Amino acid sequence: MTARPQDAQAPISPPDPEAAASPGPTLQRRKFLATGGAMVGAAAAMGMGGRAAAQGAAPAADANLPPNVPAWTRQLGAPTAAPYGKPSRFETQAIRKLYPGLTEPMSAYSTTPLQELDGIITPNGLFYERHHAGVPEIDPAQHRLMLHGLVERPLIFTLDELRQFPAESHIYFMECSGNPSFLPPWGKTAAEVCGLLSCAQWTGVPLKTLLHEAGLKPEGKWIIAEGADGAAMNRSIPMEKCLDDVLVVYSQNGERLRPEQGYPLRLFVPGYEGNTHIKWLRRLHVTEEPVHSREETAKYTDLMADGKARKFSFVMECKSLITAPSGTQRLTRKGMHEMRGIAWSGRGKIARVDVSIDGGNNWYAAALQDPVLDKALTAFHAPFEWQGQELMIMSRAIDETGYVQPTIEQLADARGKVSFYHNNAIQPWKISASGEVANGRA
Amino acid sequence: MTARPQDAQAPISPPDPEAAASPGPTLQRRKFLATGGAMVGAAAAMGMGGRAAAQGAAPAADANLPPNVPAWTRQLGAPTAAPYGKPSRFETQAIRKLYPGLTEPMSAYSTTPLQELDGIITPNGLFYERHHAGVPEIDPAQHRLMLHGLVERPLIFTLDELRQFPAESHIYFMECSGNPSFLPPWGKTAAEVCGLLSCAQWTGVPLKTLLHEAGLKPEGKWIIAEGADGAAMNRSIPMEKCLDDVLVVYSQNGERLRPEQGYPLRLFVPGYEGNTHIKWLRRLHVTEEPVHSREETAKYTDLMADGKARKFSFVMECKSLITAPSGTQRLTRKGMHEMRGIAWSGRGKIARVDVSIDGGNNWYAAALQDPVLDKALTAFHAPFEWQGQELMIMSRAIDETGYVQPTIEQLADARGKVSFYHNNAIQPWKISASGEVANGRA
Repeated sequence: MTARPQDAQAPISPPDPEAAASPGPTLQRRKFLATGGAMVGAAAAMGMGGRAAAQGAAPAADANLPPNVPAWTRQLGAPTAAPYGKPSRFETQAIRKLYPGLTEPMSAYSTTPLQELDGIITPNGLFYERHHAGVPEIDPAQHRLMLHGLVERPLIFTLDELRQFPAESHIYFMECSGNPSFLPPWGKTAAEVCGLLSCAQWTGVPLKTLLHEAGLKPEGKWIIAEGADGAAMNRSIPMEKCLDDVLVVYSQNGERLRPEQGYPLRLFVPGYEGNTHIKWLRRLHVTEEPVHSREETAKYTDLMADGKARKFSFVMECKSLITAPSGTQRLTRKGMHEMRGIAWSGRGKIARVDVSIDGGNNWYAAALQDPVLDKALTAFHAPFEWQGQELMIMSRAIDETGYVQPTIEQLADARGKVSFYHNNAIQPWKISASGEVANGRA
Repeated sequence: MTARPQDAQAPISPPDPEAAASPGPTLQRRKFLATGGAMVGAAAAMGMGGRAAAQGAAPAADANLPPNVPAWTRQLGAPTAAPYGKPSRFETQAIRKLYPGLTEPMSAYSTTPLQELDGIITPNGLFYERHHAGVPEIDPAQHRLMLHGLVERPLIFTLDELRQFPAESHIYFMECSGNPSFLPPWGKTAAEVCGLLSCAQWTGVPLKTLLHEAGLKPEGKWIIAEGADGAAMNRSIPMEKCLDDVLVVYSQNGERLRPEQGYPLRLFVPGYEGNTHIKWLRRLHVTEEPVHSREETAKYTDLMADGKARKFSFVMECKSLITAPSGTQRLTRKGMHEMRGIAWSGRGKIARVDVSIDGGNNWYAAALQDPVLDKALTAFHAPFEWQGQELMIMSRAIDETGYVQPTIEQLADARGKVSFYHNNAIQPWKISASGEVANGRA
């Protein structure tokens, strides 16, 4: 089941790399990225040189202090912010938001404000949430992980014991399988459209190490992972994956897991849908067959056009999103701009990202920002010019397996229109003549 | 001045890679890292198999729920943690600490709890601090950056304007030049010894882009960067570095800078001592000569044995630190253990880390954890065996230039014993017969 289901592979030929690598005549990168004299000329194109010129405010030749020294430079600041810092009170929009209209906050989710973030690391305070019975408060000294079933020696581990095993750290994305749903209403912002997605550095013990410790029996083909939350949330993971890159994780971005991310212990299943990364992990049951629990029958299966359900659709396929400019943002000047975004694939590294400003008729290659890591977000950026015309901007990612992010129409052709999960379609943003950016899918 | 000063290069020959790559007879990695049957045998070596065996607690064949289901699994948890999460209340030790005995918290620092962290990313709430006049609270809508002096067009930028320039994101370490001081008292924990060190992903505009926008004049050889804090903290940066990899940064680990890290804008000077990364950046003055201000004359110079001061000693040389086990921690069982740590160099990537358990008489190579990035922390780990004997464990890093982290004696030979800054000496930890870990330099 780790092979790609036929119906999940959108029937697209890889685009011609030569064509994609050749930007159109209005999109020469040199217009604002070249060095020296050319760059000086580009100042006007950026629309900043004239407007921001500081001739009037330029200091006298002998003055080291400019005029109008602000209040905060004339006084002592606040004391050192130890023991634990927090964001500026001015950052009112860099917050997670609940699903609008949600009437109870227990089986719920909150989104990462992708349009407020840069780069590939999601700060822990803004990592997306999805809970099935709220956030338990677990005393790590009391918590245990049991590994049992088809093993020679069933084992119970304390946190201290787990931390003594050889550890690994990896930067991986995590994404909810319902990010976004195929079904309307579409969201307005990048967070509303795609905010059940985050990326962090995870540290823990490879699950294969624990399986070797317990002595895996040959008939053990699945592991049922179970959480210590009130839902006793569980999922079945194929043994092939468990022996590959699955981690039993205790740290995220350096520090211990946050409570809403499974403190003190979670499973991490790189590239698989988020609900398999069982939080508050208390039990790993080695079995011959999957458990077929509610979360892999009634939920987290994909209803196809013929009425059958696609099951164990674990892998989050290749996808990308432009985060700037994105819905509800606004272009405030004509000229050259930079579009920025993120791309990811549950099957490995991102090989290329193309972007379009004309709704997908023409594409050109974006630049990828190092590091480009396995199953991690990869940042990309590309220049584009806006002179007050309507644009439809979009990005499509290609991963190292050659898989190309599909359009929503291609996905519908393959899966029908009642499918809910695993929508990795190209996301368009429409820029109006007045510079307003809105969801192009509306 | 970006060339390495002769006196800062410890006179060490690179160790023989062949010798270092061959662990001693008691340190065969296969003892707990091999697969299959060998690993089962190693369970006893890890000291876990017997102690943690769950035979007594193994569930009945027909029971899906194990006995003793904890309280937090029997009830609903707390609501979704939006809008901004925080660590578990049980993580009482994962905090920044002020220098003990400090009488005023304005010109102060707080340390990152390195011994509590994993991997290479420091969460923003735990990033080390060093302030010269406290933490100003700056309204980003009111904040401006002026670029003036030896440029064709002096410019003033708003935050919105800066965010429209092409941006870059990089994972870089940052370290205070006084981390640690050469002078006693030595600290007890990794944080006390070396906690003025952190690592994050930084996003901002390359300074060279802004210099091109303003039209750098050929006679501009230095840039004096000035902060908007009450100290108007300033440092002079050589133009060669400014045109290389210096960034004007607005985001850290995805989100906007924290107030104590320079919100809304700071300079980032990769590989240079932390005080050059001017926070609350308000002014960049292009000049022919450095400013020779207090912070580069009375402070942040290195007094040598001959009474002369080494000045503009910008680069943080190659260094490493074992964080686990480290001071005040304790080994609780005999057998195989994993030592973990971090290595970094202001001159590029880490090429190798060697470790020793006998005070530096014999060395063997640690494994580096991907990703190994330019001027970023690199995580390393290595196995070692402890059977109740006294050990002196230590690590030494080698960067891609071939520079080898020196001993404290080698540094003292090169610089004398009154030097205060830029102590990158090998840090020993002593493990006692009872398993207590203490600073080996005491």
